[in-house]
Amino acid sequence: MRALQRTVTALALLAGGAGAMLGQKSSKAEDAVLAADAAWLKVYAAKDLDNSVAFCDEQVSMLVSNVPIATGKDAVRKAIADDFANGDLIWHANKAGVARSDDLGYTVGTYDLKMKDASGKPVLDKGKFLTVWKKQADGKWKVLFDMFNSDLPAVLNPPAA
Amino acid sequence: MRALQRTVTALALLAGGAGAMLGQKSSKAEDAVLAADAAWLKVYAAKDLDNSVAFCDEQVSMLVSNVPIATGKDAVRKAIADDFANGDLIWHANKAGVARSDDLGYTVGTYDLKMKDASGKPVLDKGKFLTVWKKQADGKWKVLFDMFNSDLPAVLNPPAA
Repeated sequence: MRALQRTVTALALLAGGAGAMLGQKSSKAEDAVLAADAAWLKVYAAKDLDNSVAFCDEQVSMLVSNVPIATGKDAVRKAIADDFANGDLIWHANKAGVARSDDLGYTVGTYDLKMKDASGKPVLDKGKFLTVWKKQADGKWKVLFDMFNSDLPAVLNPPAA
Repeated sequence: MRALQRTVTALALLAGGAGAMLGQKSSKAEDAVLAADAAWLKVYAAKDLDNSVAFCDEQVSMLVSNVPIATGKDAVRKAIADDFANGDLIWHANKAGVARSDDLGYTVGTYDLKMKDASGKPVLDKGKFLTVWKKQADGKWKVLFDMFNSDLPAVLNPPAA
């Protein structure tokens, strides 16, 4: 949890300095989408399923490696539950952008997934993600698409942590 | 090439009926980003490296499975060349969306990659992609982020085609 706290703090600091990646919208708009990303990370890393699903748009799709796309809140709920069972995930958003109209945005970054291999040995998967965010009628940013894949040579054979 | 032509035709038909996925922007805006996606597919499937890289924004990143993120045109040129060497790729965009301000959009869909395994046997990888597009000052849509991953249980061991 201390590692997670450091991540959330780092994200909060990052949000202040993210600047206008698209060169189109103020950093304030990007701060808002980075804040949504950090808030999602907080409930996701805590494996809070209801609140993790609550960050998703009604039309959400999750694009997980090695399984077909999951579309809709029911399918994404299952995908997130599978992800929780898979290990302990944190991520670090290091880029964000928002359209001039402030209704569509993205976050991009890296993840660390601590899990156990078939023999129960702890292993660490490292990879990257791309999340597309849609602003809701109430002004809240929610996840429209979330996709991630591993940086490691073979997804199913990560090295020992 | 006939399969590719069918794909491009299907995309052109799809572009006409894609509708406003975000419920925010006219289908005309989505037609434009789907047309850019289809035009990129045409040069990519033909393994035309210069024209494939020309579809990328200056700030492009490509998020390829099993390698770290590639950022910038030089790194992405290498990633695309690696992809060309990997096999024969086609994709099928089946969703698109554009911000109200018409400067940021996305396409989402599936891909088929025909390749050969270590023994030279033809194999077929199937997966999905998420592409984020940024409209340039000249009105052209270019690729800001492109990410894809396999639907198959193990990326490196696809079944025989």
